[in-house]
Amino acid sequence: MLAVVFQVRLPTAADTDGKPALHVLLWQRALDPERGKWSLPGGRLGADEDLTSSVRRQLAEKVDLRELAHLEQLAVFSDPTRVPGPRTIASSFLGLVPSPATPELPSDTCWHAVSDLPPMAFDHGPMVEHARTRLGAKLSYTNIGFALAPDEFALSTLRDIYSAALGHPVDATNLQRVLERRKVITRTGTTARSGRSGGRPAALYRFADSRYRVTDEFAALRPPG
Amino acid sequence: MLAVVFQVRLPTAADTDGKPALHVLLWQRALDPERGKWSLPGGRLGADEDLTSSVRRQLAEKVDLRELAHLEQLAVFSDPTRVPGPRTIASSFLGLVPSPATPELPSDTCWHAVSDLPPMAFDHGPMVEHARTRLGAKLSYTNIGFALAPDEFALSTLRDIYSAALGHPVDATNLQRVLERRKVITRTGTTARSGRSGGRPAALYRFADSRYRVTDEFAALRPPG
Repeated sequence: MLAVVFQVRLPTAADTDGKPALHVLLWQRALDPERGKWSLPGGRLGADEDLTSSVRRQLAEKVDLRELAHLEQLAVFSDPTRVPGPRTIASSFLGLVPSPATPELPSDTCWHAVSDLPPMAFDHGPMVEHARTRLGAKLSYTNIGFALAPDEFALSTLRDIYSAALGHPVDATNLQRVLERRKVITRTGTTARSGRSGGRPAALYRFADSRYRVTDEFAALRPPG
Repeated sequence: MLAVVFQVRLPTAADTDGKPALHVLLWQRALDPERGKWSLPGGRLGADEDLTSSVRRQLAEKVDLRELAHLEQLAVFSDPTRVPGPRTIASSFLGLVPSPATPELPSDTCWHAVSDLPPMAFDHGPMVEHARTRLGAKLSYTNIGFALAPDEFALSTLRDIYSAALGHPVDATNLQRVLERRKVITRTGTTARSGRSGGRPAALYRFADSRYRVTDEFAALRPPG
């Protein structure tokens, strides 16, 4: 199993525009094969565990990462030549960490901007791309944003998170309209402690659910009653 | 790999209400283990093929099934005790056959109504349930109905297909409204050759695309331009 763990983070490099960007958790290989290249966290399935328990165990062991708000199976990568040596099939997982969390990481591990990946081991680069595409699709028909956002947030914060995850600008007003109509987000009734300088304090929102669900079960397809 | 292949079919049993129902393709095990129980088609991954090629090969070999309109990976079933003997991990696939197709089947293989499954081998019953749930979700946010429907159809036919796949009644007018607004279906400009007795001939529709896509990329989340 290999886990593609995403978080929307402020970039650390000085030469960026300072906007939050989608980052992925990678560790640098100290040994051959592919020494020096960057890998997704993961490892082999133990004899008495299923895939999901195994991924949780390995993330907790290797990268001290217990703050996952969402974890799901994505796809199986089974090209016979995907890694050298004996055949290995990889099941990829999508993991999401909410924005403000700062999990402790071992020294060989760090967050990289998805738009600027370092040299990647094996087929881990395409796995990150695949996971990002799936995340983008899921943002449109599920409430999965809950797993990237803080508990409470101003709309401008949510817009930044969606824009970072999708890789293109999103309009805050449209986002609010769609997510409120679908009852994905609701107002908390409070405002941010300090508004932008000179502006009104921003209304705060939260996700209505913190369990993953499809939000586009349009009326025609809902069970009656 | 194991394939959950669905088709909406008229029931064969005499004691039903005659409405189309969702069916799944199963074969009866002639040998132990689980002799006499019903299995999903599939088999082991060959050394030089990936999962999808393998599923296609096995479906073609075992059940002469080349009329699949859609095939995708669904999930990995990895409970250590899911089958007796050496550990086996199963990757499930969703396959869909359009309504009018009547693929030839070997004598140990037939279609069963999902609502009335025979005694199932291993964890194949839960796999069918899982696939049905995923199909239901996908019907609401993708154009996947194209893979269950005829090339051209009256709305009443499409309603029957959606109702069968979802397992509950769907309103034809709502269905038309939503699918037309999303440009999932379009009118062909023709009508059915014979209308219902005494009624007007029914307008015919078709799916705009016969490639799987997410149809709920709502405006706020689309890339600009």
